[in-house]
Amino acid sequence: MSTSSLPRLAVVLGDPAGIGPELIARLLSDPAVRRSAHIVLIADEDEVRNGMHIAGCSFSYSAIESLDSLDFEDGLPLLYPYRGDTEGRFSRREPSVVGGRYSLDTLGVALDLTKTGHTDAILFGPLNKTSLHLAGMDHSDELHWFAEHLNYQGPFCEFNVLDDLWTSRVTSHVALKDVPNLLSQERVIEAIQLIDNELKRSGLARPRIGVCGLNPHNGDNGSFGREEIDLIGPAVERAKGLGIAADGPYPADTIFLKVQGDNRAFDAVVTMYHDQGQIAIKLMGFSRGVTVQGGLPIPIATPAHGTAFDIAGLGVANVGATRQAFEIACRMGSTKR
Amino acid sequence: MSTSSLPRLAVVLGDPAGIGPELIARLLSDPAVRRSAHIVLIADEDEVRNGMHIAGCSFSYSAIESLDSLDFEDGLPLLYPYRGDTEGRFSRREPSVVGGRYSLDTLGVALDLTKTGHTDAILFGPLNKTSLHLAGMDHSDELHWFAEHLNYQGPFCEFNVLDDLWTSRVTSHVALKDVPNLLSQERVIEAIQLIDNELKRSGLARPRIGVCGLNPHNGDNGSFGREEIDLIGPAVERAKGLGIAADGPYPADTIFLKVQGDNRAFDAVVTMYHDQGQIAIKLMGFSRGVTVQGGLPIPIATPAHGTAFDIAGLGVANVGATRQAFEIACRMGSTKR
Repeated sequence: MSTSSLPRLAVVLGDPAGIGPELIARLLSDPAVRRSAHIVLIADEDEVRNGMHIAGCSFSYSAIESLDSLDFEDGLPLLYPYRGDTEGRFSRREPSVVGGRYSLDTLGVALDLTKTGHTDAILFGPLNKTSLHLAGMDHSDELHWFAEHLNYQGPFCEFNVLDDLWTSRVTSHVALKDVPNLLSQERVIEAIQLIDNELKRSGLARPRIGVCGLNPHNGDNGSFGREEIDLIGPAVERAKGLGIAADGPYPADTIFLKVQGDNRAFDAVVTMYHDQGQIAIKLMGFSRGVTVQGGLPIPIATPAHGTAFDIAGLGVANVGATRQAFEIACRMGSTKR
Repeated sequence: MSTSSLPRLAVVLGDPAGIGPELIARLLSDPAVRRSAHIVLIADEDEVRNGMHIAGCSFSYSAIESLDSLDFEDGLPLLYPYRGDTEGRFSRREPSVVGGRYSLDTLGVALDLTKTGHTDAILFGPLNKTSLHLAGMDHSDELHWFAEHLNYQGPFCEFNVLDDLWTSRVTSHVALKDVPNLLSQERVIEAIQLIDNELKRSGLARPRIGVCGLNPHNGDNGSFGREEIDLIGPAVERAKGLGIAADGPYPADTIFLKVQGDNRAFDAVVTMYHDQGQIAIKLMGFSRGVTVQGGLPIPIATPAHGTAFDIAGLGVANVGATRQAFEIACRMGSTKR
């Protein structure tokens, strides 16, 4: 493959108090990783070195002074030393204003770089929501902050990806009692379309999308709950009418058996509420899960786990999910090229 | 072990249209199974032989004419040939009045036999709800029919057991929108007590019981849902006050990681609604799951899977769950001895 066809990835460390720096160091110290993408690391240089020290590995990079034109000719990752508006020491293993501010500032540069076409996709290390809020982010999560930063008005939602299986949810961080009222044919169709588009962007020609019911046993033909009959079933049919390979609704307690292990009945599962998918995904592979910020105009991926303050700095953090996130960002970035 | 200390099990085939007869045949053809319990099979003799034929295995038994006094001295399973009030051929691979009637009649004998102390526990093969309803059972499920047959007025609920992990649910076959209104401190405590009692009956001195929250991330300190704060947390504390080793609430999407694989933080997990537990249990081992009819005065266990009409008669049904159900029935029956 000619190097010019490689995806260009903007990479940031996430919160320096957590395991992000050591994970990114471990990831980029793998020559195979460095060969499969052009990498621009936007990070405080001391933190990059600290990550290498914790992880017990290292990689060479070219420090650059400007992001205006990126030259990947020598094959090394580029490091744009950047610390944003923060001053003072970074906190370790705890939320802090400085950690949150640094996270947002470096992500902001990565977003701008990718929005302007200098890079194709973003990979970031784990963020800490408390740090982000301490730093003044007043959105419910980083996904909404990304959307505002990009001035993006369309629909978006978080996708949870495990190996080749993608999941999304029609409702997310809301009380369970509010879930039924938030469901509608339109919202179900929108969720199906969103993940269909994103999977196509990641390289699948015709994603097969399984859709969950809401009630136990799909409501048993209306005996306990009618959402399958009144909302979800019709939404699936309308999605099919739009040419999408949607299928369902299937009872939530058996649909994941169809995609477990070697089973691959679907490329994606659309769930109706948070725990429907999260119970399954976490059991199927907690350490490998990836979050994709779906619907946004640029591809963004991150490991699904958090900052893991309990093990940060020990050098024992599992790089599996970060590696999966890297590969997904590469795939999605490649289709933009 | 002297044979007189063995648990005495009443065994019925379940619906003859399904995989019950072949599963019971496969189970009882294992000498180790026959050595670990005194077995009274209450079944149509042709169906017993048909099950052996399908499964491609056999075992010897002593046919008996009366259940008044059971003599296990020769070590063979006893067969009480019984077909109940049904006549005509049994249907195959489909629901039928005859299959449902036969299921209920044989179960009725097993219940009476155990209630009167002639046997200690019941194991039954898969039932078909449509057959049961066709046969005139007007209860929502067999558990309610058992309770009425036993004239039992106390609390009861279905337990789902996977290997050594037990789960129960505060609400069951109800619409998801009705779940929050059905939860109360009293119902949560009752569910905790019920599974605590049942695990003690199965031989555990001090069962460790994990309790699920209702909302995503346990409601994130009341940000989306307050049931954890207002109902579930206080119920767990009250259960602790009663001397029960209860713990929680824990977010539903991570509690099962604590009991997955070699992890054994809890002996039981009490869930708030059907799919919370069923998504997890089915992913963790669909083919090994057992249903225990919990709370009833006599121990009753059955494989969690159904009649599997699609593979009935082919001799390929997996005996794993039936074997697990047998072992649980033995354990629970032993403590009655």
